[in-house]
Amino acid sequence: MKELPIFLSLVNSFSKLPGIGVKSAERMAYALLEMKEEDALTFAKSIEEAKSKIHKCPRCGLYTEDEICETCKDEARDHSTCVVVTFPKDALAFEKVGFKGVYHVLGGTISPVKGIGSEEIALDSLFERIEKENIKEVILATSLTLDGETTALYIGKLLEGKGVKVTRLATGLPVGTSLEYADTLTLAKSLEGRKTL
Amino acid sequence: MKELPIFLSLVNSFSKLPGIGVKSAERMAYALLEMKEEDALTFAKSIEEAKSKIHKCPRCGLYTEDEICETCKDEARDHSTCVVVTFPKDALAFEKVGFKGVYHVLGGTISPVKGIGSEEIALDSLFERIEKENIKEVILATSLTLDGETTALYIGKLLEGKGVKVTRLATGLPVGTSLEYADTLTLAKSLEGRKTL
Repeated sequence: MKELPIFLSLVNSFSKLPGIGVKSAERMAYALLEMKEEDALTFAKSIEEAKSKIHKCPRCGLYTEDEICETCKDEARDHSTCVVVTFPKDALAFEKVGFKGVYHVLGGTISPVKGIGSEEIALDSLFERIEKENIKEVILATSLTLDGETTALYIGKLLEGKGVKVTRLATGLPVGTSLEYADTLTLAKSLEGRKTL
Repeated sequence: MKELPIFLSLVNSFSKLPGIGVKSAERMAYALLEMKEEDALTFAKSIEEAKSKIHKCPRCGLYTEDEICETCKDEARDHSTCVVVTFPKDALAFEKVGFKGVYHVLGGTISPVKGIGSEEIALDSLFERIEKENIKEVILATSLTLDGETTALYIGKLLEGKGVKVTRLATGLPVGTSLEYADTLTLAKSLEGRKTL
């Protein structure tokens, strides 16, 4: 039974998803066999449609079904403030906090360890946009990891003297943290960036 | 972006899988968008094919692409010894330990708490097989949980005096367990079922 080629192919597909090992993939494939016919076919159709209809916005890199994404098209948004994110999903977090500017998706971070250079992320298009779209502030919102910081620093350097304000998300203690659980690095950053009340 | 209907439908499909909440489903849907076109289409096709070509063997309940499953068809196997399992995937565990008899899938367990009665599991077909297929031993391999034990006891009662040997998997300490971590119930069962060396 385990050897059914179709079943194996299904397990193989599931195991390509992030964080899914062979065991979980098998469990999912079994669940799919037990699923209602209708639900399974909707599932298959969703995958096909997602792949055929959703693509990256040529301007900012967010996902869209249209030629240009909704954010880029929306004239009510502030097109002079651009948040630079690593992946499209990162933009969602900013939407949730009510950010009303635009985005630019890098598609990755510079990583000397993984051998990812600056030419592999969407930098040229960012610089082009800064010039053409009259962007006044670039908010670097890469992760607070080594690669994310490296990327932010690199972009910051390249934008020096270009007449655009470059900012980085504040580092500090997360809201709701108990001081006793704060790690030293975060606490040091938080002390360094202290504000007058 | 999050509001793209196709994306939402994909997230919804993923969240129907076991153990997958909305957050994980979103992560998987994003991974799918980033996946190679070819892999994604293979994924969709696998789902469709699995649903259209794989069905349950009318005799034992295991999954098969043929009319009757390979286990039932295989004359080299011992058709007089039948392991009764809850779900098709349980049979795989027995295949791995080299079991060479046949299987019968109940499709569930009797559960007074969940309101699942004996008529909802494949019992009639089991009794029919015992009569027609000359089954000499029925090995009850439902889980060692309350519902699994209830089901095993119930089947055992019904088969009393029917001239078929009914056995249950041994309860005891798992191989490799350290005694200090053994729970009391398992240890008690293990003591009760002790064997002379």
